[in-house]
Amino acid sequence: MAVQVSKTGTGKSYIGYDDKGYLWCEELKVVDVLKNVGTSPFFLYSKAQLESNFQAYVEATKGMDAIIGYAIKANNNLNLLRILANRGSGAVLVSGGELLLAEKAGFDLQKTVLNGNGKTMEEISLAVTKGCLINVDSEFDLEHIIQASRQVGRKARVLIRINPDIDPQVHPYVSTGLANSKFGIRNTHLEWFLNRIKQESSFLDLVGVHCHLGSTIKQVKIFKDAATIMLEFVSIIRNAGFHHLQFLNIGGGLGIDYERQGDVIPTPEELVASIRDKVKEAKLTLIIEPGRSIAGNTGVLISRVIGVKSNGNKEFIVIDGSMSEVIRPSLYDAFHWIGLIAPSSGELSKFDVVGPICESADFLGKDRMLPRPEEGSGIVVMDAGAYCYAMASNYNMRPKPAEILVDGKQWKCIRRRETFEDMLMLYDQK
Amino acid sequence: MAVQVSKTGTGKSYIGYDDKGYLWCEELKVVDVLKNVGTSPFFLYSKAQLESNFQAYVEATKGMDAIIGYAIKANNNLNLLRILANRGSGAVLVSGGELLLAEKAGFDLQKTVLNGNGKTMEEISLAVTKGCLINVDSEFDLEHIIQASRQVGRKARVLIRINPDIDPQVHPYVSTGLANSKFGIRNTHLEWFLNRIKQESSFLDLVGVHCHLGSTIKQVKIFKDAATIMLEFVSIIRNAGFHHLQFLNIGGGLGIDYERQGDVIPTPEELVASIRDKVKEAKLTLIIEPGRSIAGNTGVLISRVIGVKSNGNKEFIVIDGSMSEVIRPSLYDAFHWIGLIAPSSGELSKFDVVGPICESADFLGKDRMLPRPEEGSGIVVMDAGAYCYAMASNYNMRPKPAEILVDGKQWKCIRRRETFEDMLMLYDQK
Repeated sequence: MAVQVSKTGTGKSYIGYDDKGYLWCEELKVVDVLKNVGTSPFFLYSKAQLESNFQAYVEATKGMDAIIGYAIKANNNLNLLRILANRGSGAVLVSGGELLLAEKAGFDLQKTVLNGNGKTMEEISLAVTKGCLINVDSEFDLEHIIQASRQVGRKARVLIRINPDIDPQVHPYVSTGLANSKFGIRNTHLEWFLNRIKQESSFLDLVGVHCHLGSTIKQVKIFKDAATIMLEFVSIIRNAGFHHLQFLNIGGGLGIDYERQGDVIPTPEELVASIRDKVKEAKLTLIIEPGRSIAGNTGVLISRVIGVKSNGNKEFIVIDGSMSEVIRPSLYDAFHWIGLIAPSSGELSKFDVVGPICESADFLGKDRMLPRPEEGSGIVVMDAGAYCYAMASNYNMRPKPAEILVDGKQWKCIRRRETFEDMLMLYDQK
Repeated sequence: MAVQVSKTGTGKSYIGYDDKGYLWCEELKVVDVLKNVGTSPFFLYSKAQLESNFQAYVEATKGMDAIIGYAIKANNNLNLLRILANRGSGAVLVSGGELLLAEKAGFDLQKTVLNGNGKTMEEISLAVTKGCLINVDSEFDLEHIIQASRQVGRKARVLIRINPDIDPQVHPYVSTGLANSKFGIRNTHLEWFLNRIKQESSFLDLVGVHCHLGSTIKQVKIFKDAATIMLEFVSIIRNAGFHHLQFLNIGGGLGIDYERQGDVIPTPEELVASIRDKVKEAKLTLIIEPGRSIAGNTGVLISRVIGVKSNGNKEFIVIDGSMSEVIRPSLYDAFHWIGLIAPSSGELSKFDVVGPICESADFLGKDRMLPRPEEGSGIVVMDAGAYCYAMASNYNMRPKPAEILVDGKQWKCIRRRETFEDMLMLYDQK
């Protein structure tokens, strides 16, 4: 059975099926990779897919001043970060840990943004020291940034995070730009912020504005509306005396085609085209913060079938992958396309695909039409490159899985599987 | 303001407030512990609470043959496990990692049960080798156990996991005993299982039956109904020739009073009393698998306030704890009681208590009436001893927090906080 997997909106697909029903990652058959890697589950990434997804943003922003700030929280594998840093990517950081990691990966820290509603003093001080851009999220956050700048003895380059109150029409957990969100300043307090920044102009350099609407967004119009609103704020702020305001950070949040039913997802080109003229006209440098649309379809989770069982009217494929590697289905009710990695003559039937964790929340997919697989055969959970390993846990004392990177005909382990001993590392006396 | 925290159903409360509004853990004021520990957030446990909760099960099962099998998945801190193992607790295991950990903690492995719908061959072989009881979950699981016993050259002691199809009236994610669940055998196939076990009697010793209804259960009647159904199965199985069937494992799942509004939760005494006579009459050894009711109110998460912000009609307390330590609110829509750890003269107001993670799912509690706290002051998330650290992640490159154990007037670190370097441990080349 040849399962067709559609291409995503961000360009060519480097992980997909051939006509015979074998899954390939670049020039390697995934069944062969599974055999050679040995243990499962593991995450499998395509280098070409990562580079191609990033390149789509490079091309989309050609001819304009722009920073492509990869959102490290989506996938923070150091070796993947190095690939992006080498290509000139900026980075969006949400913790001190991510800042240190970005430095280690070789990102130009002038092209990084520290974001977040609850930055600690230590994190802000580090960001000021390293010259990162810093988003101001609230009154207390601004005061902390002032304090940190005083201590460090260096001006902080700040952007104000504005809440445009636009509904991104996504799951509430990944919606961040509504008035009820924990993120961003009260727009009615903008004047207070501007006055406070003026008062502390020896410690603060207001260089831009930021917004972030949410995640898994599928409509360009939402970004366009946000840009329109943000440009009004830019005018207000410039007219208040901040004539050199330089950056418009429109955040991230572009969705990907998880369903793989040919859904039309805007490309980075379409997204940027919808706002390009306005941004250039206003003489602004665009910052864009893609995470999922760069990392999402770059990786998949490869598992083995432990067994197939029936509870009368319901059938289950039990795999060795679980919610401890991919929590998105149970946390966000998210859909990931699931398939076998090799052709199968098994009868088609409707299955829940579940993991071995002792908990009903441990499912990867429900009601999936799949050929009945043999024990030991490989199962792929597609589009697991973003917000999967990054959110992985050791629930049920499960070791974190290996991460494997494919480059053409070669594969290598870019983060090894955790061992039982590793899981005991934080005990002083074993 | 003195906040009163009610006692839980399982006995005396060792973590609670005094009349002045200070939170105590045994004989230590938590504000002092916070000051001395330094970094936050951290988990804080009471040794006396753990022992008292376990003791409640010991007393409940006095005068009958019983194994109290602590469900390690609830909280697997090695030092807490050692306390329970020393007191004679058995253990319920759901992975090979938990089995190795139970051995390290000193549990008598004859009093452990390996559970799960997706055990690997390696895990089963280990369990057979070590003499654990093993729950048979499905046809393929039974075949794997037979295979493992052959390989190891030792009889497996097995229980059949029966699905009693009882609604525990809890969140679907923690409900496990309904016909649509991924767990347990099809009851209509029981005869097949019994015949197969007879055929392979040189490799299998059928010693009991098992069921597990779910979690956070608040009604004794649900356990009683399950026991009635299970005893019918015991009769059927004994009459089929397994006269020596010894164990009735009624699983775990007793809830705790997360709301702390004085909800009446059955005690272990009440639970066991409701089935005691029937179990003794049937000459069975009872196995019970408490996790949450032993570990849940044993621990709390202590965080510091980073700041307080308003988005117009909504106010937020931003703390340095987050969904990466306590995912239950966002994953299960679970309620944890939240309070300040010291008296405050702050004006009472309604707040969302949120963490610093860049995601709207990162909340600990919503719409909580609390005094407006000072920056840096301590916040407690109560009843965080079960399914919190065990499910913790490094999302946003957050290090796993320290775990602190209080014993009377003493505290010690029983698992250290992760460092940035620790988080890079799985890269071969840094």
